[in-house]
Amino acid sequence: MPEISNKGRAMPASPIRKLAPFAEQAKKRGIHIYHLNIGQPDVETPHQFWDAIKNIDRKVLEYSPSNGFEDLRKKYAAFFQTRYHLNNLLPEDLLITTGGSEALFFTMLSILDAEDEIIIPEPLYANYIGFSKSGDIRVRPIPTSIENGFALPSIDEFEKVITKNTKAILICNPNNPTGYAYSATELDRLKEIALKHDLFLISDEVYRDFTYDPSIPYTSILEIAGLEQHAILIDSVSKRFSACGARIGMVATKNKLVLETILKYAQQRLSPPTVEQLGTMAMFDVEEDYFKEVNKEYKKRRDTLVEALQKIDGVTCPVPGGAFYCIVQLPVEDTDDFCRWMLSDFNYQGETVMMAPASGFYATEGKGKNQVRIAYVLNSKNLQKAIKCMEEGLKAYKIANAEK
Amino acid sequence: MPEISNKGRAMPASPIRKLAPFAEQAKKRGIHIYHLNIGQPDVETPHQFWDAIKNIDRKVLEYSPSNGFEDLRKKYAAFFQTRYHLNNLLPEDLLITTGGSEALFFTMLSILDAEDEIIIPEPLYANYIGFSKSGDIRVRPIPTSIENGFALPSIDEFEKVITKNTKAILICNPNNPTGYAYSATELDRLKEIALKHDLFLISDEVYRDFTYDPSIPYTSILEIAGLEQHAILIDSVSKRFSACGARIGMVATKNKLVLETILKYAQQRLSPPTVEQLGTMAMFDVEEDYFKEVNKEYKKRRDTLVEALQKIDGVTCPVPGGAFYCIVQLPVEDTDDFCRWMLSDFNYQGETVMMAPASGFYATEGKGKNQVRIAYVLNSKNLQKAIKCMEEGLKAYKIANAEK
Repeated sequence: MPEISNKGRAMPASPIRKLAPFAEQAKKRGIHIYHLNIGQPDVETPHQFWDAIKNIDRKVLEYSPSNGFEDLRKKYAAFFQTRYHLNNLLPEDLLITTGGSEALFFTMLSILDAEDEIIIPEPLYANYIGFSKSGDIRVRPIPTSIENGFALPSIDEFEKVITKNTKAILICNPNNPTGYAYSATELDRLKEIALKHDLFLISDEVYRDFTYDPSIPYTSILEIAGLEQHAILIDSVSKRFSACGARIGMVATKNKLVLETILKYAQQRLSPPTVEQLGTMAMFDVEEDYFKEVNKEYKKRRDTLVEALQKIDGVTCPVPGGAFYCIVQLPVEDTDDFCRWMLSDFNYQGETVMMAPASGFYATEGKGKNQVRIAYVLNSKNLQKAIKCMEEGLKAYKIANAEK
Repeated sequence: MPEISNKGRAMPASPIRKLAPFAEQAKKRGIHIYHLNIGQPDVETPHQFWDAIKNIDRKVLEYSPSNGFEDLRKKYAAFFQTRYHLNNLLPEDLLITTGGSEALFFTMLSILDAEDEIIIPEPLYANYIGFSKSGDIRVRPIPTSIENGFALPSIDEFEKVITKNTKAILICNPNNPTGYAYSATELDRLKEIALKHDLFLISDEVYRDFTYDPSIPYTSILEIAGLEQHAILIDSVSKRFSACGARIGMVATKNKLVLETILKYAQQRLSPPTVEQLGTMAMFDVEEDYFKEVNKEYKKRRDTLVEALQKIDGVTCPVPGGAFYCIVQLPVEDTDDFCRWMLSDFNYQGETVMMAPASGFYATEGKGKNQVRIAYVLNSKNLQKAIKCMEEGLKAYKIANAEK
C-alpha cells in the first residue's frame, strides 16, 4: 500500500467538526445538543433565490464563464456601490468564485509561492491554516489578546515577524473567530505597514453586514486611498443572505495582474456552479428591511449571550463588535477535553452544548487551551438555555476533575 | 506595488480559452465561428434536474455535509452498481466534490507532497498541468504517439521516468484530448507497474459513457482485483448528463486513509453547492434510453468528423475510441499561429473555426506544434461545414505563408 507522507501539507483536523463523532454518540443516547460550534445561520434565505431558480428556463446546464456570469458581476458591483458606497468597484474588478473559501485559496496561490509567508493576527479562522498548508505557504501569526478584546497589535508586532519572504497580511473584518471589528485607525495602521514593506493586504469581509456598534463605521479595504495595488477583498453571499449552501463568493482588486493570475486558477476549475449563480443574482434585489431585521436579531443574540456568559464565575467574554462569533475564556485547563466531556459525559436535563475548542484557531502550538469559540446562531431563548447548560457543565466538570 | 513572482507555480494560460480575444474580435466583424475548441455539449440535460430544483421546499440554503449529501452518495453508488456493475462501490467509499476538477485537485494534494512526481501519458488534459503547478507537484510525461493512435506505452517507458519521488500515475479513460480508450490488457500493464513500484493509480473516468467500440469493453480502475489500495477513481456528472454547469463530481477509493485525507481538504472548502446536489440526485433516475440516444449521436458525430478529416490532404486523424475529442495533425508548422490566423485573418463564406492548439496539451516543451485538439460537440451537419471551412483555411494559410 503506497504511503501518504503529507509532510509538507499536514492538514489539521477541523476544530469545528472534529468532535462530531462524540455529538453523534450523544444524540444516539437521546441527548439534545445546542450547536454553538458552527456558523450555520438559521435565518431564512431571501425568497428571491428560490423564486429565481424555479423560473430558470434553460435546456442545457452549461458552464458559466470562469469568472462568473457577467450579469452577476454587474449585480455584485452595483450592490457594493449602492449599499456600501464603494463607487470605485466595477464589474471588471471582481471575479466570482465557488464560495469565499475558493476566493481566498486562489488569492493565496496567486500571490504566494511555496515557502512564502503570510501574517495573520491570531486567533484566526481555522481554515486559513488549511489553505496555507495546501499551498505550502507559511503562516506567521501575531498575537492578539482577550484582555483588550482582540484589538489589532501595534506596528512593532508586525515588524517583528516581517522577513524577506513575507508577501501579505490577512485580516478578517469583522473577525471570525473573535468578533472584533477593526476601526478606521487600525486600518490606517495596516495601510502604513503594507506600503512601507510593499505587502498585499487581504481583507476577508464576509461578515461585513454583521456589525453592531454604529460608533465604529465600517471601513472596507477597497476604500482606503493609496492602497489600490495592495488591497484584495474577499467576499461571499453565504452569511449576508444566509445562503451558505450556494457556495458563491468573489474576490475584488484594482490590481490587474493579481486578478489575471487568479483568473488562471479559476479557468483551471472551469466555472462556479451555474444554478446557484442564477439564484444569487436575484438575491441582490432583496429589500433593505431584510438586512435591518437580520442585524437586529443578531445584535439581540449577541447581547443575550454576552450578558449570560459574563455572569458565570471565571468566564471572560469581550463584547464582540461584529460577525456572530466570540472567543470565550473558561475556568478550565483544556477546552479540548472539556468540550469532548460535555458531549460524552454530561447532560443537564437531557441537554448539552457543542462548542469549538479554540486551540484549532491558533497557529501557535499551545495557545488558546482555555478558550472556546462560540457561534451565536441560535435564537435568544435557546442561547439562554445553552449557556445555562454550559454553566452547569462547568460546575460538574470541576467536581468530576477534583474526584480524579 | 508588490511583485508576484509565482516562480514555483507559473500557471500556464488555458489552451482552450487563450484565443478567446481573437474569437471575440472575429464575432465583432460579423463572422460566424464553429467552436471546436471547448467540450461544452449541446445535448439537453435530463428534465429530472430542472424538475427537482423547481420542487425544492427549503427555507434556508444551508451547507451540505463536506462529503456531500448522504442521499446523493447513495444514489451515486447505486447508479455505479446498476449501470456499471461496480458492486463493490459503496456510498462510504466516495466523496462528492465541486466538479471532477476539484476531485482530482484534492486527490493530488492528498497523495503528493510538494516536489513529488506524477506520471501522465501525454498529450494530456491541459488542466492536469495546472493542478500540478498549483500544488508544486512535478508532472513526468511519457510520450504516446499519433502513429499508433495514442495507445499506452510499454512498461519500459514508465520505468524510465520512475524515481524515488514518484507517487502516482494518472490516466484519463477514455482520454481527453486523444479520445483513446484503454483496453483491459493496458490496464493490466498499469496494475503491474503500480504494484511493483507501489504507486497510486488515478483514473479520470468522466467520459466513460462515451465509448463507441463494443469490442473494447470498458474497464474501470475500481474493478481491477488486487489494486484496491492503489486505485482512485475521478468522476463527474458534467459530461454524463450534459450538466457541466452543475459542478458536481466525486472521488472514490477503497483506500480509507486517502479518502480521510481528501475529506480534510473537503472540510476546508466547507461543502459542494447545495442546490446543484439536489438537482443531481434526481438525474440518476434518467431512463436508459437517454444514454443510448446520446451515445448514438456522438458516434455519428465522430464518424462524420473522422471521415471528413481523413479526406483532407496532409491531415492525420486516428479514430478515437471514446470521449468527444481527437488530436489531429495538420500540414502546418505551428498550430498556435494557424489557429490564431483562422480567427484573425480568415473566413470562408463568412464563417471560421476555433480549435485548441495542441501544444498546451503537452507537458514537454515543443511537442504537439503541428497538432490541434478538436471537440466534436456540434451536430453532424455543422461539423461537416466546420471541417470544410478548415480545409479551405489550410489552403489559404499555405498561400498566405508562401507569399511572406
